[in-house]
Amino acid sequence: MEKYLTDLVSPGTVIRDVGVMQHTSTGYRAAGKRIATVPTMGALHEGHLELIRRARRLADIVVVSIFVNPTQFAPEEDLDKYPRPFEQDVALAFREGADCIFAPAAQDMFPAGFDTGVSVEKASRPLEGAFRPTHFRGVATVVAKLVNITQPNIVVFGQKDGQQTVVVRRMLRDLNFPIDLVVVPTVRDSDGLALSSRNVYLNPEQRREAPVLFESLALARELIRHGERSCAAILHAMRALIESKSSALIDYVSIADMDTLDEVNNLHEGNSIMISLAVRFGSTRLIDNIHVQL
Amino acid sequence: MEKYLTDLVSPGTVIRDVGVMQHTSTGYRAAGKRIATVPTMGALHEGHLELIRRARRLADIVVVSIFVNPTQFAPEEDLDKYPRPFEQDVALAFREGADCIFAPAAQDMFPAGFDTGVSVEKASRPLEGAFRPTHFRGVATVVAKLVNITQPNIVVFGQKDGQQTVVVRRMLRDLNFPIDLVVVPTVRDSDGLALSSRNVYLNPEQRREAPVLFESLALARELIRHGERSCAAILHAMRALIESKSSALIDYVSIADMDTLDEVNNLHEGNSIMISLAVRFGSTRLIDNIHVQL
Repeated sequence: MEKYLTDLVSPGTVIRDVGVMQHTSTGYRAAGKRIATVPTMGALHEGHLELIRRARRLADIVVVSIFVNPTQFAPEEDLDKYPRPFEQDVALAFREGADCIFAPAAQDMFPAGFDTGVSVEKASRPLEGAFRPTHFRGVATVVAKLVNITQPNIVVFGQKDGQQTVVVRRMLRDLNFPIDLVVVPTVRDSDGLALSSRNVYLNPEQRREAPVLFESLALARELIRHGERSCAAILHAMRALIESKSSALIDYVSIADMDTLDEVNNLHEGNSIMISLAVRFGSTRLIDNIHVQL
Repeated sequence: MEKYLTDLVSPGTVIRDVGVMQHTSTGYRAAGKRIATVPTMGALHEGHLELIRRARRLADIVVVSIFVNPTQFAPEEDLDKYPRPFEQDVALAFREGADCIFAPAAQDMFPAGFDTGVSVEKASRPLEGAFRPTHFRGVATVVAKLVNITQPNIVVFGQKDGQQTVVVRRMLRDLNFPIDLVVVPTVRDSDGLALSSRNVYLNPEQRREAPVLFESLALARELIRHGERSCAAILHAMRALIESKSSALIDYVSIADMDTLDEVNNLHEGNSIMISLAVRFGSTRLIDNIHVQL
């Protein structure tokens, strides 16, 4: 079926084998091609497609990886039910111009005896890390593997996973990977809800209330624009707005330095901040963030 | 002085800057050259020179890194007094055919805000890891950096640091670095003492007794050759021999599986084992090991 789809949709290739992918990338690089890799967990939506389109403009060869990385899920999280519409993903990625799709099996990425982890220490601790203590180690490790396998000049990530972009940037820089990180702005539904593969879990009431994440971020931006400099005041207003929605339960709301993720108490000219939050709707946990440059 | 030495000794170059080194290696790779990197902490002896000679035979370009990596020393260890005969090292490396020497400053390898670690978990715990709990994290992290900076096809390590070769092999494989690890047999003095930059710390009595490390390994090999299959019996004999030297204090003596470093109790046909030990002479700690394939 894969082969059929591949033939039908595009001249691209679905590569399952780690060695074949690495060999293919080595060939591209030896031929002087510029590679952009777009790491995804599949369940592609318009946000991912925007990443692929950006990669298409920046490189000769676009590799889209589709891999639901088990090591970034905690035991109680949604690994098993995470959506995997693989054939649709393949068709979408090729439609947007992917040259090849790398879709390895978990046992080939993490075979028996696998023993190595890549950790970004400080940047992994707050925010998502406080709720998902093993998550970013899983992310940093799999990104290190994916870039070694696909050998890109550029990797493309979405701003929606804001802390992830900070962790990945830090990891790439600290370990001297000769790779540029490109971060693409979050794609939103018309009501402001950030696109996410987890939005499909929301029931109708939750879906109606979920735009409050972005509304609270927009409120924060407005307050800052009107001169508010106390982060406590901004966070208080954001929380009040979110708590007005009966199905929303706040995990955190944060105003942090964009590079270090240290919480900020008072805003000053020149601050580059990430305002971010995680809110649960029933068992579905959504995150969102914006940057503000003062 | 560096420049002078460089001009005098060879057409090679001493590169201090991380970006220049990476750029240089990118250029070599783009030109289709095969690169071998020999990571060292300097204080080069005949063992290191053997690594460089092997690299010379395997690659078009030989990069020798000289970097006393602070992150693999614990606070109480010998970072400050570790020998650094830099100009002699440069002359020796070029004499043996190095094309360039990469000698970065510690603050360029680990600048303020550095936040990333690479850990090989299980293989870092026993043997040296039990005595130096942060050591292999420091090693794995700096090797990941050095290979990303120097971009080799091959890295060359000495067998003398046996567990290090296991940890580095595991890390390169687990993270899919497209790099072959070449391990070169230990070079020994005429009395069997493995060459080590730390041998210079030994006083005359300790130096006379230090060959007991290799003698005990040779004894183990003989016992196995004559049919001994109980590791307890072999280890007992090794310990007795070492303890006959008044200046020697054993940290550990071990018979472990070559790949997993799990201790082995009874030897069987087909076992691939590393017999290893660490012995202190005053404040100087020496290690040695041999492979035995049954």
